[in-house]
Amino acid sequence: MTVEEINKARSAVEFNREQLESVLRGRFFYAPAFDLYGGVSGLYDYGPPGCAFQANVVDIWRKHFILEEDMLEVDCTMLTPHEVLKTSGHVDKFSDWMCKDPKTGEIFRADHLVEEVLEARLKGDKEARGLVEDANAEAKEDADKKKRKKKVKQIKAVKLEDEVAKEYEEVLAKIDGYSGEQLGELMVKYNIGNPVTGDTLEPPRAFNLMFETAIGPSGQLKGYLRPETAQGQFLNFNKLLEFNNGKTPFASASIGKSFRNEISPRAGLLRVREFLMAEIEHFLDPEDKSHPKFEEVKDIKLSFLPREVQESGSTEPIVKTIGEAVESKMVDNQTLGYFIARIYKFLVTIGVDESKMRFRQHMANEMAHYAADCWDAELKTSYGWIECVGCADRSAYDLTVHSIKTKEKMVVRQKLETPVEVTQWEIDLTKKLFGPKFRKDAPKVEAFLLGMSQEELADNAEKLKADNKIVLKVDGVEGDVELDSNFVTIEKRTKVEHVREFVPNVIEPSFGIGRIIYSVFEHSYWNRPEDTARSVLSFPPLVAPTKVLLVPLSNHKDLAPITSQVSKILRKEKIPFKVDDSGVSIGKRYARNDELGTPFGVTIDFDSTKDGSVTLRERDSTKQVRGSVEDVIKAIRDITYNNVAWEEGTKNLVPFVSQTDNE
Amino acid sequence: MTVEEINKARSAVEFNREQLESVLRGRFFYAPAFDLYGGVSGLYDYGPPGCAFQANVVDIWRKHFILEEDMLEVDCTMLTPHEVLKTSGHVDKFSDWMCKDPKTGEIFRADHLVEEVLEARLKGDKEARGLVEDANAEAKEDADKKKRKKKVKQIKAVKLEDEVAKEYEEVLAKIDGYSGEQLGELMVKYNIGNPVTGDTLEPPRAFNLMFETAIGPSGQLKGYLRPETAQGQFLNFNKLLEFNNGKTPFASASIGKSFRNEISPRAGLLRVREFLMAEIEHFLDPEDKSHPKFEEVKDIKLSFLPREVQESGSTEPIVKTIGEAVESKMVDNQTLGYFIARIYKFLVTIGVDESKMRFRQHMANEMAHYAADCWDAELKTSYGWIECVGCADRSAYDLTVHSIKTKEKMVVRQKLETPVEVTQWEIDLTKKLFGPKFRKDAPKVEAFLLGMSQEELADNAEKLKADNKIVLKVDGVEGDVELDSNFVTIEKRTKVEHVREFVPNVIEPSFGIGRIIYSVFEHSYWNRPEDTARSVLSFPPLVAPTKVLLVPLSNHKDLAPITSQVSKILRKEKIPFKVDDSGVSIGKRYARNDELGTPFGVTIDFDSTKDGSVTLRERDSTKQVRGSVEDVIKAIRDITYNNVAWEEGTKNLVPFVSQTDNE
Repeated sequence: MTVEEINKARSAVEFNREQLESVLRGRFFYAPAFDLYGGVSGLYDYGPPGCAFQANVVDIWRKHFILEEDMLEVDCTMLTPHEVLKTSGHVDKFSDWMCKDPKTGEIFRADHLVEEVLEARLKGDKEARGLVEDANAEAKEDADKKKRKKKVKQIKAVKLEDEVAKEYEEVLAKIDGYSGEQLGELMVKYNIGNPVTGDTLEPPRAFNLMFETAIGPSGQLKGYLRPETAQGQFLNFNKLLEFNNGKTPFASASIGKSFRNEISPRAGLLRVREFLMAEIEHFLDPEDKSHPKFEEVKDIKLSFLPREVQESGSTEPIVKTIGEAVESKMVDNQTLGYFIARIYKFLVTIGVDESKMRFRQHMANEMAHYAADCWDAELKTSYGWIECVGCADRSAYDLTVHSIKTKEKMVVRQKLETPVEVTQWEIDLTKKLFGPKFRKDAPKVEAFLLGMSQEELADNAEKLKADNKIVLKVDGVEGDVELDSNFVTIEKRTKVEHVREFVPNVIEPSFGIGRIIYSVFEHSYWNRPEDTARSVLSFPPLVAPTKVLLVPLSNHKDLAPITSQVSKILRKEKIPFKVDDSGVSIGKRYARNDELGTPFGVTIDFDSTKDGSVTLRERDSTKQVRGSVEDVIKAIRDITYNNVAWEEGTKNLVPFVSQTDNE
Repeated sequence: MTVEEINKARSAVEFNREQLESVLRGRFFYAPAFDLYGGVSGLYDYGPPGCAFQANVVDIWRKHFILEEDMLEVDCTMLTPHEVLKTSGHVDKFSDWMCKDPKTGEIFRADHLVEEVLEARLKGDKEARGLVEDANAEAKEDADKKKRKKKVKQIKAVKLEDEVAKEYEEVLAKIDGYSGEQLGELMVKYNIGNPVTGDTLEPPRAFNLMFETAIGPSGQLKGYLRPETAQGQFLNFNKLLEFNNGKTPFASASIGKSFRNEISPRAGLLRVREFLMAEIEHFLDPEDKSHPKFEEVKDIKLSFLPREVQESGSTEPIVKTIGEAVESKMVDNQTLGYFIARIYKFLVTIGVDESKMRFRQHMANEMAHYAADCWDAELKTSYGWIECVGCADRSAYDLTVHSIKTKEKMVVRQKLETPVEVTQWEIDLTKKLFGPKFRKDAPKVEAFLLGMSQEELADNAEKLKADNKIVLKVDGVEGDVELDSNFVTIEKRTKVEHVREFVPNVIEPSFGIGRIIYSVFEHSYWNRPEDTARSVLSFPPLVAPTKVLLVPLSNHKDLAPITSQVSKILRKEKIPFKVDDSGVSIGKRYARNDELGTPFGVTIDFDSTKDGSVTLRERDSTKQVRGSVEDVIKAIRDITYNNVAWEEGTKNLVPFVSQTDNE
């Protein structure tokens, strides 16, 4: 089989998710966690092949990004105290809207409920208009396809007024952008209640998606499981900057679990409560977002779905090179563009089908609270287009808020080649007066004053001039703090500066490893056209859980010594392999292994005992070649780890014809 | 410098923990987490070198155990529902005893408090007897050395009666074995209260060490962060057994974070609230604990501290081979012995000093609630001997309790070569009667009856015979369940069995990665005798965070092309390296790098631009050799990854004399 023939075979049989899932669970790639206890939705365990696949993806990620780009990897704790996530905005804003039914205690996610009810009414309308035959049957089929448990159990064929139907369509188009209050208003306006009983629900309440816990025995230190690895990286910024000899740009990176207490998880591995993330925080000068290695990637062609295209209602991507995208300002700057290209290369390396990848720009109303701009790498699956990597410009948001909260500077100091004149507000304190007046609170008051922004200083200078006093509220100090001009002087001064100080901006590529892995599963899965019950997972060899299946033709004792000899060599070469000496036919053993995505089979037969030669089988083409153990292992190593093509890697081996695949 | 000379130099300057910690924090191996917010005790972040070191340790662990032994790696969730940990015993037994001061709200760990107060009184007694000059000064020095915050602030010189002093000594010797009640009695008997105010404390209360949280929006599904990775492995036993074609022995393994909400964490990285574990669960036949590869390790000599030696009050280890240890039954069986030897080899590979390693058997009263026997690999540090790896025989405890709770069999079925006769109680149900009588509860009642143990069956057979009925409580069924002999028959029957069914035992090697890493830091650290301010971390090259420091002799532009050329080769070879082209002297750059534990320095000078040769420096000996870029990189690769010694690896390079180390 040629590459074209393989590609043709791979798309010959229609994709069937049920069948893929049955293979993935049957081969224990993953399984619902706590199955034995009835399971907990949104939690999954990875079995041996899934775990090895994940370890390979992480290893490639680490080499592709951290080693290749000299990033500073950190490993920070998941337990995070309340104060940190209060500052970052997660305590207040990291939530979904939920409605409780006061009678049954049932909980609904508000946006999903409104969406479902309006969709159901529109379907009922269609049935009433005679446009579909049976709206219930159609909705069920749709839900089955998406594996969603529907809250709306029955659709009634009720005709809507044209005006109303149009309103519903408009609401649905904007469903991701409503606030809790707006969702509540929609529920009142359109009389949306519990879809089974019809009872009125409580108004939407924000449900924070972080898991809460208490740190230490007193129960007084409230903490959360981190919703992202990013905060740990931001908090260590000063230490990382020092480690990097004070220079920017540089990037930190972190690989670890994060948590999200979903209201009602669905869609398998795509929406879970505990997940592996790999995040990069690239710190750079807000005035210089160029990238020295942009030249190396600029000719890579990608599919883009910018904001304007989406606003026009189209989903037709724009295909252009990343160089053109940055040139035309569609993608804001070189660094953002560089990472987009590197993300593309990583995804292709681990087996994503590039025809099922696009970069979509976030709409203004869907961005996280910290983001200034964001492009998602989306992968097409049977669930639709799924956000798998976010590439956000978080601006200086996080460093700024933590710096203000902790009164700790988080800045880069850059020596200026030509000194500049700077005019700014400055404050002087008559420190000896603070102790007697404020006693133990003196340091807090002083720190507060010294931490004032330019705006605050300007404001207070005016007040001081007008009233000869300023009155302040200082965190942790009881009552008002009153100060006159004996205590403080605020003046505008002009100085020559030799050092420029700036808070760096952050570009953040953030990878949801579980979602990427599931997408690769879908992109790699196919059925052999000649026998559709036979499934194959065509992982790239580098990322396959096991590289080699070692199969003695039979259980005959003469084959044991050479099997154990080849095992020893593979172990020494650190090539992951499995021996299958079960009694079943070779064809069955290969079939089982195709489901595990193992790219190579090495068969040991009676000729092997005579001349030391073995057979090498390629998974996708089922092609076989033969040669010495040494040459076969060299071919495996070259193809797996050194990016050599099959034809090139096996050119010293001789074609071998056998019937084993059909045995 | 020869190896002997290096070893002599390494032990010439006395170890100083303060200095080591200052190097580790200064070079950002690790730092207290949330430093910026004042820190949270027991939580630490790893910076770039610590993180790379940890990744290397994990990688070596994975190759040494999982790949080499063909283990089945799984990745299970940390979030764990209440019911699972209730069954495993952790909800009831995974706790420490704490006492609260009702006036101040202060919380004390009961065993630590009793220990400290009695120790302080014994010290006061010594001072009163004139045996020490100043007990307070001595205690302070002691605490400083151990970096412990003492709860007892002042020691009074009060003489104790001989009898009392003897009692105190006895209590201290057994301090790890007391129950909460016993600790409470001791506190009353010896009048132990708040050591500062003297006030009476509340009686000891069990404080569960698991972090609690709520899963899902209703708040009704209580969960914990796992205290160990083991439970996830046990719950997946049936799937793993199937994956392994139904055969034992086999091992599963898991690497991931676990959590322990310590009452008052101390001792830096050694006692933390969130930590990386690597755990193996080796499932085996309780009647056959031999190991096929035991022969390969049997001659390894180790230091053992068995139970009897400890009971005799000695800490003098017994040195013998693991073969002798198993032969003499000191170590129970070959599999336990095999793992002990493999643990030893792993620890030596990553840089543990074997003269600071011993295997200590747990005393009966200190074993975890699930363990039948346990040997710890302990490493000697400035904090004393630290438990770093536990190697426990958990017997069939976990599989049995989960199986009983979930009524799900967790057994191995083994075909018997010669069938055996088995006599046992069996129950038959007249199923058609269950539906009409129990309606929707019928399946629960049936499952309950079929899940009865042999003891329960025997018991109920007797009742059925005596009363012609049995009365049962069935989980989830309201009221009593009453059945007569129309519904059930319970009989003793003899059958010929062709299959043997057994619940496997579990041998569990469990690694605390953070503790191991800290111990390697201590074992690797030394100061150069000729300049004690110069610190070195002599990590084995394989585990060092960075392998090569690339140093152009100066900033001269002529050196840039060859520096970038060597960088490119190192990157292609995937050898982790750093370029240091900062302006400081070469000597200073080397010194900085010795603190990072980088084993090799490659220097580029003006001769390099002429003949392409570079210098290779070895960290410990500061020896330098010279050769082509190709040969130098080959030497680095061989020494780092292929276990080649320096002398052998550099035999084609020529010695090079330079003054750079003293510049």
